[in-house]
Amino acid sequence: MERYKIGLIPGPVSVPTEIRDAWKIDYASSDLEDEFFTLYHENQTLTQKLLHTRNKIVITSGEAMSILWAALKCTLKQNEKMLAVSSGLFGTGFAEMARAFGVNAGVCEVPYDEIPDAQKVYDHAKNFRPKVITAVHCETPSGTLTTNLAEIGAIAHELGALFVVDFVSSVGGVDLDVDACNIDVGLLGSQKCLSLTPSLSISSISQRAWEVIKSVNYSGYEAYKDWEDVPEIHYMPYTHDWHSMKALNISLSRIMNETPEKVYARHSEVAKLCRDFGQEMGLKLFPKSEYFSSPTVTAFYVPENFTWKEFDSALRERGLAIGGNYGVLAGKVFRIGHMGNQADYELVKNGMNVIREVIKERA
Amino acid sequence: MERYKIGLIPGPVSVPTEIRDAWKIDYASSDLEDEFFTLYHENQTLTQKLLHTRNKIVITSGEAMSILWAALKCTLKQNEKMLAVSSGLFGTGFAEMARAFGVNAGVCEVPYDEIPDAQKVYDHAKNFRPKVITAVHCETPSGTLTTNLAEIGAIAHELGALFVVDFVSSVGGVDLDVDACNIDVGLLGSQKCLSLTPSLSISSISQRAWEVIKSVNYSGYEAYKDWEDVPEIHYMPYTHDWHSMKALNISLSRIMNETPEKVYARHSEVAKLCRDFGQEMGLKLFPKSEYFSSPTVTAFYVPENFTWKEFDSALRERGLAIGGNYGVLAGKVFRIGHMGNQADYELVKNGMNVIREVIKERA
Repeated sequence: MERYKIGLIPGPVSVPTEIRDAWKIDYASSDLEDEFFTLYHENQTLTQKLLHTRNKIVITSGEAMSILWAALKCTLKQNEKMLAVSSGLFGTGFAEMARAFGVNAGVCEVPYDEIPDAQKVYDHAKNFRPKVITAVHCETPSGTLTTNLAEIGAIAHELGALFVVDFVSSVGGVDLDVDACNIDVGLLGSQKCLSLTPSLSISSISQRAWEVIKSVNYSGYEAYKDWEDVPEIHYMPYTHDWHSMKALNISLSRIMNETPEKVYARHSEVAKLCRDFGQEMGLKLFPKSEYFSSPTVTAFYVPENFTWKEFDSALRERGLAIGGNYGVLAGKVFRIGHMGNQADYELVKNGMNVIREVIKERA
Repeated sequence: MERYKIGLIPGPVSVPTEIRDAWKIDYASSDLEDEFFTLYHENQTLTQKLLHTRNKIVITSGEAMSILWAALKCTLKQNEKMLAVSSGLFGTGFAEMARAFGVNAGVCEVPYDEIPDAQKVYDHAKNFRPKVITAVHCETPSGTLTTNLAEIGAIAHELGALFVVDFVSSVGGVDLDVDACNIDVGLLGSQKCLSLTPSLSISSISQRAWEVIKSVNYSGYEAYKDWEDVPEIHYMPYTHDWHSMKALNISLSRIMNETPEKVYARHSEVAKLCRDFGQEMGLKLFPKSEYFSSPTVTAFYVPENFTWKEFDSALRERGLAIGGNYGVLAGKVFRIGHMGNQADYELVKNGMNVIREVIKERA
């Protein structure tokens, strides 16, 4: 399918016309014009507000994987130690990525249907003494939200580690206080709760992190080092994407106009609808407790009398597209993405109705 | 300025409405849909045709700097040897980038107003024995076209080196036969002759290069290794940008419909107009010989009775935006970008008329 009738993929999400309208303009050169740097700065300020942080915001071109790599490569050198706090595929993924460039990466893991255990993290980290501790706010494949980031952040800082958090698929749909959680490097994607194309990546970087970034001095497309003072010096390491920067501005302004509180309430309500409706029709929630379930994405087990392929095909025949899964969760757990533009009560209700029909038909 | 009345920046260039129309559609998920992989494959085939190559095409998200890094990081390990053939800022830039991750990089340099000397390259490379030789087809800051890539490519292959070529700002405006030039890794940007936003990067990769890429086994956002069989395996290392992929398809189709021959003729004619008109009004061409001047960008010395800032301001007051310069060329040499959508006879004539007015006024 090129377009979805009912699209509930947990990212990339549907991009509303109002945001795609950014491409109506034939912009000037982002390398040269004051107006671009003003826009960049405006987006920094709006993002700081959204994240409750005074940390610097860096907005780069490319998909969110670029900053997952950036956060690791810019803070860790070969043989240095990192601890990946994991309750899912992306949590463990951080350790795999770091090992790929020679980092000594440990994993503090819990089952994928739970959220991290702060005491276990403390014990592991106290013994291992990592330079960096990583965590994931929303484990999209598991549909879980790590609600105890503040505790993990406090542990990281108590032990002198930098705290790197992937909040790619939560921020914009869930309130997160970056400074209260001691997040040194925070990572946000554009194609999730911000309802943009997957063309920008946004990082929040603390003063402690900048110091480490300078000492590591990593060079590459993912390097943060030349982004610290972009709007002040009017220089970037490459030509930026003005259209996407404008689209981000529209998206952030929409959130501020609706008010973040209302946006989060909308996500919570729609997530509750999804969980309640699903369980009512006999679906089993993947997260062990409703309390762990993310307001941005809901994960259920694939119904027992279907393979994932059969289930997905039957839904697609009726115009509904939802997310499957990866790794150990592939074929077993499916996901409904109700983030950003898709945190829409009617849309999710329509989608859940289709699921009910398909399940009923086979019952 | 947010938009240009007469825009002649040598990239990012003006993006025509027809290409920006790709953003009118609310696309499905590029991770999941056959239609996306079909589009990706179609763009691969069109690019192969444009480049006269049977090498595999890789299309990634992010600005062209991402693949300049990719080409080096995926083919070279620490302490290995690379030779940068340089006649400009980007030529020497390759060596600086490689040194930043520990490569032993030599530079075979000529003055920036010339093009590389094949005999010098041969002598240098025969003695140095690099694993990789890099070159730049169009040195955008110098406005020169390296017309002897075939000779350098033959030398690279004779000496067993991989040949990496930055053709970011030439392909789509100048004919280049990648296979005849023995180009193992070829690098193309989207915001130059293809008249796209700076959101995609395109690489052509030979079988010899794939073997080296596998042995180096570099991991990161810039890594090529997981892109070899994207359309066949329907899997990518991150969520791709469907809108940009569609925009690329529109751009490549436009070139094929106009026919590449006519597109190249249009670039040549417009470049000639620019050179002739400029010299007629007393401007001095930066390239030592007209024969070195690129059909995509023309570089002149800043007129003697102006500083660059004064000159630029006077042109901008009349609605014309052209390119300044960087590094040793900053303040001395300016550039007129007539590539892609800007390879337009009337547009360039209007721009040159403005330049003539401004020069006349002060004379």
